[in-house]
Amino acid sequence: MTQSKNTAKGTLYVVSAPSGAGKTSLLKAVLERMPDLKLSISHTTRQQRPGEVDGSDYHFVTVEAFKQMLDEGSFLEHAEVFGNYYGTSKIWLEQQLQQGHDVILEIDWQGARQVRKLMPECRSIFILPPSQQELLNRLTGRGQDSEEVIQSRMAAANQEITHYDEYDYLVINDEFEEASHQLASIFTARRLRLQSQKIRQAALINDLLG
Amino acid sequence: MTQSKNTAKGTLYVVSAPSGAGKTSLLKAVLERMPDLKLSISHTTRQQRPGEVDGSDYHFVTVEAFKQMLDEGSFLEHAEVFGNYYGTSKIWLEQQLQQGHDVILEIDWQGARQVRKLMPECRSIFILPPSQQELLNRLTGRGQDSEEVIQSRMAAANQEITHYDEYDYLVINDEFEEASHQLASIFTARRLRLQSQKIRQAALINDLLG
Repeated sequence: MTQSKNTAKGTLYVVSAPSGAGKTSLLKAVLERMPDLKLSISHTTRQQRPGEVDGSDYHFVTVEAFKQMLDEGSFLEHAEVFGNYYGTSKIWLEQQLQQGHDVILEIDWQGARQVRKLMPECRSIFILPPSQQELLNRLTGRGQDSEEVIQSRMAAANQEITHYDEYDYLVINDEFEEASHQLASIFTARRLRLQSQKIRQAALINDLLG
Repeated sequence: MTQSKNTAKGTLYVVSAPSGAGKTSLLKAVLERMPDLKLSISHTTRQQRPGEVDGSDYHFVTVEAFKQMLDEGSFLEHAEVFGNYYGTSKIWLEQQLQQGHDVILEIDWQGARQVRKLMPECRSIFILPPSQQELLNRLTGRGQDSEEVIQSRMAAANQEITHYDEYDYLVINDEFEEASHQLASIFTARRLRLQSQKIRQAALINDLLG
């Protein structure tokens, strides 16, 4: 697909959440209902976990390769989390937006700040768990990590939560269905704005105006 | 209910459409799913039709009573359509918004212009039929009016349509379920904005921030 004058540029969404808020599951549910939404795939230097697919979950790269891309200015944003690097490739993202796709970046508050500076037209969404107790239940419930790792995650989650008010939208993930419905409504409503619809529905509007 | 510091002010939505676009049916479907949305009930001098309920569909008033309210500055907007007056009472509307309810005004482009001037923070939505042919089908399909009345309605509908681009959002009513879903998403998404959620979810946020 090439860019066309008849294509409304897509919207870039930045979605952040503390670990345990259910961000990934929520986005998965929304993407199943809205297949024209695109999830950005980050480059990372962290180790591939069992079940993760290179090129689908992440682009797994060496620290050396990551630093070279960084030097070449290939990243829209990048961050170091738990000693690993994460970054979003500019080229793929711009292509998707030009082709009219809405793109979702799952990044933390540091990345969100970088993206807002470079692309102030992006919209940002923060997802919260319903309570501290539920956050602890969810982080404990995974059952594959030690107590120490869980405590470290709780601390990181609570640190992330303090940045909730830097975002445009706030979704509470208490009841999953309700939260995924709310999240989808943000993407849907934006496509209905006049400037977007004038382009998407140009043929229909021409027919109506005779 | 009285106003509270803990209540986020509601949003005023202006919804317009040509006759035959399905505006009233769409709003009815959305209101059933979102019972906390309030539909504004207009005052009108037009004759009550069979099945219409005074105080529920409209407040039916005499021309004399309407003109007195107009002189007293009681209307946010008013219009004359087909020789009848229609108007929206200011007092009720302000009360609802202060209590945190989102309120929907079903008015035409003339009323929408008046409301935008007085309440620029309102959001406006225009609903379009999918084509001229479908518009004609729908206006003919009612089967209770003469050819002359139908032609007059088509002319009025096409006049209304020319104002579509004065609105913030555009919804196409082609497939009813899809259109009602889109309409609802506009109301839902706005409630998720940070400033609104900070007030609605204050207790939850306080718990999370410890």
